[in-house]
Amino acid sequence: MAAEIWRRTLLEVIGRLGGAATAYSALNMAGLLATPTAYAAPPVLTPASGNGKRVAILGAGIAGLTAAHCLSKAGYQCTILEARARSGGRVWTIRGGDQIAETDSTQHVAWQAHRDIYLNAGAARLPSHHQGILGYCREFGVALEVFVNDNRAALVQFDSQFGGKPQTARRLHADLRGAIAALAAKSAPADEAVQSMLRIFGDLRRDLTYAGSSRAGYAAEDDVPGAANRSGRLQPPLALDEIAGPQSIRMALALCFAELWQQSPTMLQPVGGMDAIVRAFDRAVGGMIRHNEEVVQIERSGDGARIISLDRSRGRPSALEADFVICTLPLSVLEHIPADFSPALNHAISVGAKMYFPAVKVAFEAPRRWWEIDQKLYGGISWTGRDITQIWYPSHGFHGEKGVLVGAYIWSNDPARRFTAMAPAERHAAAISDGERLHPGYERLVGPAASVAWAKIPYSLGAWIEWETISGARQAEYPTLLAGDGPFYFAGEHMSYVTAWQEGAVQSAHYTVSRIAERVAATNK
Amino acid sequence: MAAEIWRRTLLEVIGRLGGAATAYSALNMAGLLATPTAYAAPPVLTPASGNGKRVAILGAGIAGLTAAHCLSKAGYQCTILEARARSGGRVWTIRGGDQIAETDSTQHVAWQAHRDIYLNAGAARLPSHHQGILGYCREFGVALEVFVNDNRAALVQFDSQFGGKPQTARRLHADLRGAIAALAAKSAPADEAVQSMLRIFGDLRRDLTYAGSSRAGYAAEDDVPGAANRSGRLQPPLALDEIAGPQSIRMALALCFAELWQQSPTMLQPVGGMDAIVRAFDRAVGGMIRHNEEVVQIERSGDGARIISLDRSRGRPSALEADFVICTLPLSVLEHIPADFSPALNHAISVGAKMYFPAVKVAFEAPRRWWEIDQKLYGGISWTGRDITQIWYPSHGFHGEKGVLVGAYIWSNDPARRFTAMAPAERHAAAISDGERLHPGYERLVGPAASVAWAKIPYSLGAWIEWETISGARQAEYPTLLAGDGPFYFAGEHMSYVTAWQEGAVQSAHYTVSRIAERVAATNK
Ligand SMILES: Cc1cc2nc3c(=O)[nH]c(=O)nc-3n(C[C@H](O)[C@H](O)[C@H](O)COP(=O)(O)OP(=O)(O)OC[C@H]3O[C@@H](n4cnc5c(N)ncnc54)[C@H](O)[C@@H]3O)c2cc1C
Ligand SMILES: Cc1cc2nc3c(=O)[nH]c(=O)nc-3n(C[C@H](O)[C@H](O)[C@H](O)COP(=O)(O)OP(=O)(O)OC[C@H]3O[C@@H](n4cnc5c(N)ncnc54)[C@H](O)[C@@H]3O)c2cc1C
Repeated sequence: MAAEIWRRTLLEVIGRLGGAATAYSALNMAGLLATPTAYAAPPVLTPASGNGKRVAILGAGIAGLTAAHCLSKAGYQCTILEARARSGGRVWTIRGGDQIAETDSTQHVAWQAHRDIYLNAGAARLPSHHQGILGYCREFGVALEVFVNDNRAALVQFDSQFGGKPQTARRLHADLRGAIAALAAKSAPADEAVQSMLRIFGDLRRDLTYAGSSRAGYAAEDDVPGAANRSGRLQPPLALDEIAGPQSIRMALALCFAELWQQSPTMLQPVGGMDAIVRAFDRAVGGMIRHNEEVVQIERSGDGARIISLDRSRGRPSALEADFVICTLPLSVLEHIPADFSPALNHAISVGAKMYFPAVKVAFEAPRRWWEIDQKLYGGISWTGRDITQIWYPSHGFHGEKGVLVGAYIWSNDPARRFTAMAPAERHAAAISDGERLHPGYERLVGPAASVAWAKIPYSLGAWIEWETISGARQAEYPTLLAGDGPFYFAGEHMSYVTAWQEGAVQSAHYTVSRIAERVAATNK
Repeated sequence: MAAEIWRRTLLEVIGRLGGAATAYSALNMAGLLATPTAYAAPPVLTPASGNGKRVAILGAGIAGLTAAHCLSKAGYQCTILEARARSGGRVWTIRGGDQIAETDSTQHVAWQAHRDIYLNAGAARLPSHHQGILGYCREFGVALEVFVNDNRAALVQFDSQFGGKPQTARRLHADLRGAIAALAAKSAPADEAVQSMLRIFGDLRRDLTYAGSSRAGYAAEDDVPGAANRSGRLQPPLALDEIAGPQSIRMALALCFAELWQQSPTMLQPVGGMDAIVRAFDRAVGGMIRHNEEVVQIERSGDGARIISLDRSRGRPSALEADFVICTLPLSVLEHIPADFSPALNHAISVGAKMYFPAVKVAFEAPRRWWEIDQKLYGGISWTGRDITQIWYPSHGFHGEKGVLVGAYIWSNDPARRFTAMAPAERHAAAISDGERLHPGYERLVGPAASVAWAKIPYSLGAWIEWETISGARQAEYPTLLAGDGPFYFAGEHMSYVTAWQEGAVQSAHYTVSRIAERVAATNK
């Protein structure tokens, strides 16, 4: 692989899933970017320091809600304009009876109304070090439970490998570690401690070769250790080149996923759906939100700004005057809104808008939890080389009657574009046909479907920004947005190195709030 | 390391924690033992086939409860004699107000009465493939949640390494994989797929060397990717020999633990304590149990048997006549009870009794969940080279007010014997002093303590059998016990290759029930 292709693939693989920050760090480490110095601590504002200053917050996603919460406590007068009827933006939990409106279709979700029956269509999991957003869960009393990212009983299926037959993650992990440890042993120093580490790392034999391991699990029920004389019968190991296979990068990712900074345990989820966080924010700042109010124009007005919005139910325009504006709209949306920004800012926004990733999720309500009962799969993710990329099993409601399977979570470009282009019914059929490779009889195992192609969701028009998409964009455009322009500040996941995560939205809001507070403090002196 | 020492260490390391079955399989694979053939399926008995046959079940642990549940449904007349006031045996959940009676001490547990405040003193976690016991959870509606076995934010501390300073599991895992993948790359074939697999496996650079990874996490809060200009600053990697260190086997185990067949995700726990399973069994078969009834003598009586027991509250003896006896008492207890067994059986029991492992758990109620708030630790296990071996953080009640920490879980011989010999107060002080190495100020961070030294718990006298303790014992004695003797059958964790797990108790009960049913069916013909 040419160096440039490798670099891009690395960014693709690590950047997309570890969060852009990871990829950026890799570049940073390689000395390609200046070392950062600033540190965005959660802001501690003096009570009443806002002194009634008017802040218009555009968008009631996590960034807007966070900003309103911080600022209003310090005596700022906040108004949030939100185009949707609901708060939360890309934190969106879909349940039976909901509608999914895309730019060219509408789905009615025919699921049972039940505590455990939901799809987190956007944000779904929280790494334990995302203490910005987890801090709000604590403050608001949002109950959390463990999210299973890595389940060794889950399946890995590639058409090009093992005759297309799915293997358990357990087996691939064990045999991969065994093969790699055995290779390493050949070059390892003759140090006893290192050798015993390698032996246990890979479950090697005394002679430092690998010949299979109970860690790989057992081929059949009869082989599993049990009572009486069932002592267990191991499987022969899979060879390293067999495991790597022709789609080795995707395979490697499947087997290294839970090692990533943003994906390793403990991962958490709010009990009952990610929007529990949004409901909690609504309780705190709901009175400041004007829902169904679509921002259509952004103007300067003296030292401040004027925001023109349209009431979506009645079509009536109104104007909001403000001393400061915190704009949290995704750049993909913002680029279509006329605004009195500097040319440099407008350029940055239009470049940024090109880098939104079109992720797709497809979900099925299943009439019974066959993955638990028949396959001993409790939560976690199966991987495939096919377009659906992943199948997620719910981390909650174990042994319940029904459950929701995420039948596709697509985060690589071509498959995501293919699925986005399809009508919902077509997507669902495609997801079933891919899923069949992992779970024979899949079509009869799953019930009503629902899907979200984020590029077609109004007011989002994409899943998240990927600053690496256009080489140099982070260095050229991000600082312009970060600097803001007069009364205008930008916050949201795109204004961080934790893109594609709520944490980025929270931290960018904290940073923006601090800057406004500093400015107000300087003026008051 | 000499081959024999290595073999024993391997058994120690893998056998104890992966369950004996794992170690046995390794030997088995090496051709040291005959390949097993029998398979213990859960028994499906014809309704009423028991035809009133009387079965005396000794012990209301998981094995006894399972046997009673199966047999009574098929028309057998079951009586369970249980010495304790409670059912469950080694499934024992301790809460505020409970007493812990050891052979030479009594503790009163001064914890708050609260749903989340408990210690699973014995069984604490369930691998998702333990479908015998999980099947009962499903049948009885016992709610399950995820148990966190592997948390990359947890700590690993060895006095002899890194100046005794704890490292995050995350950092050790990442740097270990990096170092091993880089070593492997030197001997790897020039195959592109294999090389890209190695690269992603270890997060290697293009040239297949390792120079640190975001997977290792960040040194300080300021280094973590965030908003504004915080793009993340990596740590220098730790070298392989530094990681392995002088206690390399214990270190390797800490870093490979969640790869083991019995310890890999998804792990589960019943909501509210492991004894939820026992309460469910009690609802099903409680009427058959005579609690506080200590078996003191086991006799033959015609073709059947007579069991003499003492009512522990009133000291009154009684006799129970039965056609069959299922004895589930731990061999460590059974060896002290006079019984009309064959000499071979008595020999097997006395050999078995020598192989019980003296595990110890120490737990603290903590007045606040500092591990979550201050250290971002949500569940999981920290490891140390010191006697306490492990600290467990609760997998439930996140962000709640208080919590119970397992401050020691000791499963290696010498430390376990040291802690068993101590009086409770001494143990608790020792656990605090070891814990201080991981969590500075620990003494002030933890509250009331409770501990269980299983070797000193009456009616258990040990934590679980380890058939590997005495070389050849599994081959010589296990078959004798498995064959039984006239009316006498043996069940319990020790009668399986899943020792140290409830699953072994369940499967051995299933096996025994099948054998009795077959015998009855043959007689009725
Ligand atoms: C598929 C997917 C998976 C994800 N997975 C995770 C995950 O597992 N964990 C995690 O933490 N994060 C995840 N994320 C990322 C997370 O959802 C986002 O980073 C975060 O929610 C973004 O918050 P925000 O406030 O920056 O933007 P948004 O949530 O997009 O908020 C912007 C708001 O502006 C509103 N708006 C748009 N246009 C207008 C207008 N003209 N007038 C008025 N209002 C307008 C929108 O309706 C919206 O409410 C995921 C996202 C997606 C799409
Ligand atoms: C520290 C520890 C950790 C463990 N961790 C796990 C885990 O995480 N997951 C897991 O699945 N398993 C675990 N186990 C193992 C599990 O608890 C046991 O394998 C299982 O509970 C054994 O069930 P049993 O019925 O075979 O024996 P027991 O539970 O010991 O049942 C025997 C019964 O006989 C009774 N009895 C004894 N003497 C007499 C007498 N003279 N007369 C009448 N009755 C008598 C006892 O009171 C007891 O109720 C652990 C065990 C320990 C000790």
